Amino acid sequence: MNQYIQTHKDRFLSELSELLRIPSVSADPKCANDVRRAALFVKKELEKAGADFAEIIETEGYPIVYAEKMIDPSLPTVLVYGHYDVQPPDPLDLWHSPPFEPVVKDGKIYARGACDDKGQMYMHVKALETLVSSGTVPCNIKMMIEGEEEVGSDNLEYFVKKYRDRLAADVILISDTSIFSNEVPSITTGLRGLSYLEVEVTGPDRDLHSGVYGGGVGNPINVLCDMIHSLLDENNRITVPGFYDDVQELTPEERTEMAKIPFDEIHYMQKLGVEGLKGEKGYTTLERVSIRPTLDVNGIWGGYTGEGAKTVLPSKAFAKISMRLVPNQSSKKITELFKKYFESIAPKSVKVEVRPHHGGEPAVTPIDSVAFQAASRAFETAWGKKPIPKREGGSIPIVALFEKELGLKSVLMGFGLDSDNIHSPNEHYGLMNFYKGIETITLFHQYFAEMMRK
Amino acid sequence: MNQYIQTHKDRFLSELSELLRIPSVSADPKCANDVRRAALFVKKELEKAGADFAEIIETEGYPIVYAEKMIDPSLPTVLVYGHYDVQPPDPLDLWHSPPFEPVVKDGKIYARGACDDKGQMYMHVKALETLVSSGTVPCNIKMMIEGEEEVGSDNLEYFVKKYRDRLAADVILISDTSIFSNEVPSITTGLRGLSYLEVEVTGPDRDLHSGVYGGGVGNPINVLCDMIHSLLDENNRITVPGFYDDVQELTPEERTEMAKIPFDEIHYMQKLGVEGLKGEKGYTTLERVSIRPTLDVNGIWGGYTGEGAKTVLPSKAFAKISMRLVPNQSSKKITELFKKYFESIAPKSVKVEVRPHHGGEPAVTPIDSVAFQAASRAFETAWGKKPIPKREGGSIPIVALFEKELGLKSVLMGFGLDSDNIHSPNEHYGLMNFYKGIETITLFHQYFAEMMRK
Repeated sequence: MNQYIQTHKDRFLSELSELLRIPSVSADPKCANDVRRAALFVKKELEKAGADFAEIIETEGYPIVYAEKMIDPSLPTVLVYGHYDVQPPDPLDLWHSPPFEPVVKDGKIYARGACDDKGQMYMHVKALETLVSSGTVPCNIKMMIEGEEEVGSDNLEYFVKKYRDRLAADVILISDTSIFSNEVPSITTGLRGLSYLEVEVTGPDRDLHSGVYGGGVGNPINVLCDMIHSLLDENNRITVPGFYDDVQELTPEERTEMAKIPFDEIHYMQKLGVEGLKGEKGYTTLERVSIRPTLDVNGIWGGYTGEGAKTVLPSKAFAKISMRLVPNQSSKKITELFKKYFESIAPKSVKVEVRPHHGGEPAVTPIDSVAFQAASRAFETAWGKKPIPKREGGSIPIVALFEKELGLKSVLMGFGLDSDNIHSPNEHYGLMNFYKGIETITLFHQYFAEMMRK
Repeated sequence: MNQYIQTHKDRFLSELSELLRIPSVSADPKCANDVRRAALFVKKELEKAGADFAEIIETEGYPIVYAEKMIDPSLPTVLVYGHYDVQPPDPLDLWHSPPFEPVVKDGKIYARGACDDKGQMYMHVKALETLVSSGTVPCNIKMMIEGEEEVGSDNLEYFVKKYRDRLAADVILISDTSIFSNEVPSITTGLRGLSYLEVEVTGPDRDLHSGVYGGGVGNPINVLCDMIHSLLDENNRITVPGFYDDVQELTPEERTEMAKIPFDEIHYMQKLGVEGLKGEKGYTTLERVSIRPTLDVNGIWGGYTGEGAKTVLPSKAFAKISMRLVPNQSSKKITELFKKYFESIAPKSVKVEVRPHHGGEPAVTPIDSVAFQAASRAFETAWGKKPIPKREGGSIPIVALFEKELGLKSVLMGFGLDSDNIHSPNEHYGLMNFYKGIETITLFHQYFAEMMRK
C-alpha cells in the first residue's frame, strides 16, 4: 500500500467515523440541520486535504460542496462527484448497532452511509490529501459533493447549467457503485434509470365497519392489491403499454460475454435467505438485475396496522412504486405511461391519484475511453487483477445529466460490495475496500494524466 | 316520552359523556388502566341505578361487570349483555373533535364508543334506573357487561361456563346493532360470524436496495398483493377451497321478502362518496352485506411508508385479513381452510406465516318467540311503527356462545344507525336514539313480563 495511506490509516478512519455520526438523511425534514452540518464538515475536510479552496454553494434544496485543486490549466482535469446525504435508517429495530454510531467489526465499519456514499466519497478527499502531501498531484482535480442524491438530485440540473464553465473537465469520476467481489474487481459500465411514484386509492370517503359494509363496497386495499397484481404478467413482464418500446436489447454476443461473469445462483440465494428467485422469463438473474427494467413496490400501507385486530374497511390505501429503467428508456415518458395506465385500470368503486416522485435516466459508459483504460490499469496495479466491465442495477441520475449538460462521460469506479447492505439495516463498508480504494483513486489520477499526455 | 326520562335527560347525557371520556381501547395494551377504569365506572353506575348489587368479576383478560335486580324468582328473567370496551380511535387525524372528548352537535353525541357500545349499553343502565325509580320493575334483570368484545371476547366462554347457574334467564337482551333508519325501525334477526387472521410474507432476510436486487428476487409486497388478489375470483367469490360448503342459502321466498326492504342504491353510494359498488355476482347489495360471506383486507403494511422516496426492496410485508361468515359456516373451520390455502399459494421465493386472531360464529335469532314479539311491541309503542326483521352484517360472537352454553336465544334490539361511523373516525349516536332507546327497553321489560305470564 501507498506509504502515506499506511501511515495515516487510523486517522482516515476516525475522520470518516466523525462524518458517519452526522444523520444527514435528506428524505427526512427533521434532519435538515444535520444535512447542512455534513456539508460543512466535507467543506472543511477538503480545505484540510489541500484543495485551493472549498465552498458551500446554496441551491433551493441542500447545498453543494465544491472544491478545486488546479495544478496547471494545460493538464487534464478530473471532476469528482459524490454525495454526503444518506438513506433513512429505518427499520431501526433491525440494526445491530445504532445507525449513526459507527462500529468497526470484522474488518468492516458499520453505519448508515458507510458505503453509500460517505465512505466512498470520503476516499476521494483522502486521495486528494495523499497526492497533495506527497507533492505528486498529476492533474487538475475538481470536486462536487451534493446532498440530495437520495431524494432525486432535484437541484443538480440547475446547478450544473449555471456553473457549466467552472465545471469544465475531461472526465467525471464517481465512486458510488460496487465491484463484483473482492476477488473479482469490476468497473461499472451501465446504470439503470428510475421512475418513482406514489399511488393513493380511495374507496368510501371514511373508514367503515367491515361487518356492516363488507361485501358491498370496493375495499381500497383489495383493489390496490388487484391493481398491483395486474402490473406484471405471468412471465413477470411489466404490463404498462409501451413500457418496453425503447428498451435497448443486448446482442447475443454481449449476453454471452455477460454469462461469463462468475455467478453462483445457489450461493446468491443462500446469502439472501431465500429458497427461490423470481424474475422476467427468458433472462438470467444477472441480466434481470442489470440490463432489464423492473417494477417493485417499495412501500404499502392502509387500514389498521397496529396491535391486535380491528375490523375496519378502510377509506384509503397507498403504495410507493418504482421502476428501474434501462437504456434507452426515458424516465419522464415511463412515468407518464405508468400514470395513464394505472388510472385506466382503476375500477369504478375507487378513485385513484398517482403522484410522480423523482426519476433518473439510465446510462451507459464507454469502455474504450482513456479514462476507462486508466481506471482499469489503476485497479490492476492496486488489486493485482484486471477488472471486468459490469452493468449495474442501481441508478445515479447524474451520469445522464452530466453527459447531457456538460458533454462528459463518467467513469464509475466504485469499491462497494452488493452485500454491503446499502439502503438496508446494518450498512457497512470493508476497511480493505476503503484503503485500497483511496490508493486506486490516486493511481487513476496518475495514469489518466500520463495517458492523456500521449 | 316517559316522564322520568324527560326530567333526567340532561343528567343521563352528562353521565354517558363521563364514560365516553375513558379511552377503554381493549386492543391497545397502553390503555389497560383505562379499560379497568371503565369497568369500575359501569359498576358504580349500576349500583346507583338501583341494582341489588354490582360486582367486578376478574377474568384472565379484562373483567366482566355483573349486576342483578331480582324482584321475584317466579317472574321471568332478562339477561342484558353489553360491552364497555371500544375500538381503537385511529386514524386520529380524520376526527373533527378528539375521540375521547365527547361533543354534542346537531342532536348527536360524537366520541369513540358513543354508539358501539357504550351509548347503547348505558341505555340499559338508565332503563334500570327509570324502572327502579318509578317502582315498576316488571321482571328480574341481570346484567353482564364485558370489556373484550372488540378483541374477540376471549374469556367469555370460560366465564359463561363457570357462572352458568347465576346467569340463568329466559332471554338475552342485547343492544349492539342498528335499525334500518329512524323512519324504518328494525330488529336484527341474524348476524355474521368472523374469522380474522394476520399474514406475514418474508422474502429476502433483510431489506435490499431495489436497484441492486430489483428484478431478481421475489418482492414480498408484490407477492402479497398477488396472493390477496387470488383470494377472490372475477365474480368476487372467495377462492378458498371449501369456503362455501356450509353456507346456508336463503330460499327464493326469503330473498323476495328481503328485496321489499326500502333501499336506494344511489343514495347509498352518495352517502359513502363512491361512484360504484363491488360485490359477489348474483346478489344485491343488501344481500352482500348481510346474508353472504365476505373477505376483506383490514390492514396492510410493508417497506418504506414515510415521507419522500426510499428505493427499498423490503424483507417483509404484512396484512390483516378477515372474513365475515354466515350460518352455518364455522369460524374455526374457515380459519383452518384459509390458513391451509394461503400457505399453499405462496411461491417459492417467499415464506409465509398465517396467525389466526379471533373468530366468532354466525347466528340467527327466531322471530316467533315471545321475546321477539315483546320487542316488536315495544318499538311500536315508542316509535309509532312496527319494526321489520333485518339480517345484519356485523358479528356479535356471544349470540352463538350464549345459545350453545346457556341454551338461550337473544333479542337484538339495537338503536344505532349504519351511518353512525362505528369503528371509524367521528363515531356518533343520535340523542333521540339514546332517549327513545331507553324508553323502548323499559317497555320491552314490561311487555315481556306481561306476555310470559299469559
